[in-house]
Formats: sequence, C-alpha cells, structure tokens
Amino acid sequence: MSRFRVAVHIVPRKGILDPQGKAVSDALHSLGFDGVTDTRIGRHIVLHIAAPDAKAADAQVREMCGKLLANPVTEDFEIATVEAA
Amino acid sequence: MSRFRVAVHIVPRKGILDPQGKAVSDALHSLGFDGVTDTRIGRHIVLHIAAPDAKAADAQVREMCGKLLANPVTEDFEIATVEAA
Repeated sequence: MSRFRVAVHIVPRKGILDPQGKAVSDALHSLGFDGVTDTRIGRHIVLHIAAPDAKAADAQVREMCGKLLANPVTEDFEIATVEAA
Repeated sequence: MSRFRVAVHIVPRKGILDPQGKAVSDALHSLGFDGVTDTRIGRHIVLHIAAPDAKAADAQVREMCGKLLANPVTEDFEIATVEAA
C-alpha cells in the first residue's frame, strides 16, 4: 500500500442556482470589483488515503464522492489531482 | 478588456483544526473506507472577471481573497488556474 494525496472539486451543477456564489458576486461588486460577472462556489476536498496505486486511489475517491462527498442531484465532482504522498 | 475564468482554493491553515474534515473522515471510516487518514475541506471558488490581461486578473483575485474571500487568520488561499474565457 502506498499513500496518496487526492484533491477533489465538488461544484454546483451547471444551471443550478448557486445562492452563495450570487451573494459573493454582490459583495465583490459592493467592494468595487465591477469586473466580476459570475461566481460559483464549491468545495475543495483533500484526502490522504492508502491504496495499492494511483489508479486505485482515484477509483476509491470516485466511490467516496458517489456515496458521501457529493450530492448527485445538485453537484458534480472532478478529481483534480492524485499525487504520491 | 478580456474575460478570464479564475479558480481559487481557500483551505484551512496548516495546524488549524478542521472539524468538517474530521467529521468527513469519520463518516468515510463508517462507510468502510479505512484507508483514509486525513481529510481537509476548503472552498473551490470560480470567478469570471474582466481584466486587461491574465496577470491583472490574477492580481485582482488576490486582492479579492485578501478583502473578502479568505479569512486571513484561519485560511490560506492559492490561485489554481487563470484561463481566458
């Protein structure tokens, strides 16, 4: 077993309203950042896991996303990086 | 002015307790994912902004992180990507 550091992004699905992102866009406008047209806020999750190889680590984290980390109705996930740790 | 898509990660500072990450680690163990040793949960923010060039977009988002997006006492941020959009 080796150790891996896996980073995952969980983001609101396209077309689904993101009220937190809307609030941040509005706050940025109030602060004078007028160039901001859209803000989407998701989660950045970093997991340290033991797995035989990087492929297995990736598969394990996908399963975690399906079962716990992401809400399949409203969120999409992507494995951003899988690094030996 | 061009349009850029900037992705930022806001993560809890090293050494700062991350109760949400701890809760997710425990839940993953309950689901049988015993290989998980550590979980840290941060925010993944994607901003669409107008800026003269990529360097200016990066600088603008750094300023936003300092003023609003990150809590400088408990969080670190990193600009993950700056892409033309």
